[in-house]
Amino acid sequence: MSKAFPPALERLIKNLSRLPGIGEKTATRYALQILRWQEPTAQELAVSIAELHRKILLCSTCFAFSEQDPCPICADSRRNREILCVVEGPADLLSIESSGAFNGLYHVLHGALSPSEGVGPEELRVDRLLNRLGTQGIKELVLATSSTVAGEATAAYLAQCCKEFPVTVTRLACGIPMGMDVKYADQLTLKRALEARFSY
Amino acid sequence: MSKAFPPALERLIKNLSRLPGIGEKTATRYALQILRWQEPTAQELAVSIAELHRKILLCSTCFAFSEQDPCPICADSRRNREILCVVEGPADLLSIESSGAFNGLYHVLHGALSPSEGVGPEELRVDRLLNRLGTQGIKELVLATSSTVAGEATAAYLAQCCKEFPVTVTRLACGIPMGMDVKYADQLTLKRALEARFSY
Repeated sequence: MSKAFPPALERLIKNLSRLPGIGEKTATRYALQILRWQEPTAQELAVSIAELHRKILLCSTCFAFSEQDPCPICADSRRNREILCVVEGPADLLSIESSGAFNGLYHVLHGALSPSEGVGPEELRVDRLLNRLGTQGIKELVLATSSTVAGEATAAYLAQCCKEFPVTVTRLACGIPMGMDVKYADQLTLKRALEARFSY
Repeated sequence: MSKAFPPALERLIKNLSRLPGIGEKTATRYALQILRWQEPTAQELAVSIAELHRKILLCSTCFAFSEQDPCPICADSRRNREILCVVEGPADLLSIESSGAFNGLYHVLHGALSPSEGVGPEELRVDRLLNRLGTQGIKELVLATSSTVAGEATAAYLAQCCKEFPVTVTRLACGIPMGMDVKYADQLTLKRALEARFSY
C-alpha cells in the first residue's frame, strides 16, 4: 500500500495511523472521507485538534481533564465532599457521572498498576490521593477501578495504602450486568454474583 | 454519555464522530489518545488535516487525487497510453498500483452507479471517460470496478457505452482469492471460478 497517493494525503494517513487500533487501511478510509467533506468541516476538525492541548489541563486536585482549575466537579459546592471515587481514567469518570448515581468527588489515576509496563504507584501519583485522604476530611473512598487484572491489583494496593487513614474503603459491586442472560455470563462473574447474593 | 468532559474535548469528539463508522465511544477513545500525545504530534495531525483540501486537487484528465494537474501517472511518459483502467475510487487505484501489474493510465469514477442513492452516469462523469476514449487513441479499457452489485452494474453500463468506440473492453477476472481455502469460498465465487477454469 501507499506511494501512489499525493504527499499531503500520505502525510495525513501516517498521522491518523497513530490513533489507537488504526492501521493504514482504516487511516486511508478516514483520510479519503475527510477529503470528501466540505472544506469548512475539515477545518473545524483541524482547529479542534490544534486547540486541544492549549485548552485542556489537569485539575490539580482530582487530575480530571478540565478547562478550569479546579475542575467544575471539584468547584461544585453541591457535591458531597466526604466521598471520593477513584477511577482509572477520564472515560470511567464520565460513565459514572452519566449513571447519575454518584454525587461525591473524583480522583483520576490516569492508569492502573502494571509493573510489566513500568506503571507503579509513582506514575499514578498515589501520594497525591493519600494526601487528599489526610487533609480533606474524606470519610469514604470508593475504588472504581476496572475488574481487570490491573484494575483489581490497583484496588488491592490502594486499599492497603488507606489502612493508616480513618476512611471507609469500598469497591464497586461485581455481578451480572443488567439485561444479561445468566447463560451467557462467564464463570468468574457468576461465582462473584453468587457469593454476593442478597435477600430478595 | 457526555456533558462531564470539558467543551474543547466534547467539540473534538463531535468532529471525530463524523468519520465513517465512528460512534461517540470510539471518537472519545481517539480524542483522549490525542490528548495523551505530546502537543507537537497533535499539531502535526491538525496541520495535515487543515492543509488537505488546499493541496489536493483532482487530475483534470483521470480524476485521481493529486497535488499537480496532470497527476504524476498521467504525466509519466513511461506509462502505456493505449490502455485505460477504470476504477471506482482512489483506494482502488492505489491497490492496483501497488500490485505492480498495471502500467497503463487510469480513470477514477469516484463512485459506482446506484440509482437508489441518486448516483447516475452524470455523477460519475461518464461523458469525460467516453471523451477520452474518442480522442486519446486508447485501445483497451479495463473495467476494474468492484464485483459488488453496484460495481457490476457500472461495468455492464460502461461496456454498453463503449460499443461505439474502437476499443477492446475487458473486466478483472473473478475467482478464488490467492491463499484462500476452497472450502471457505462462497458459492457464487466458486461458480465463477469453475466457469473461468483454465488448462494447467
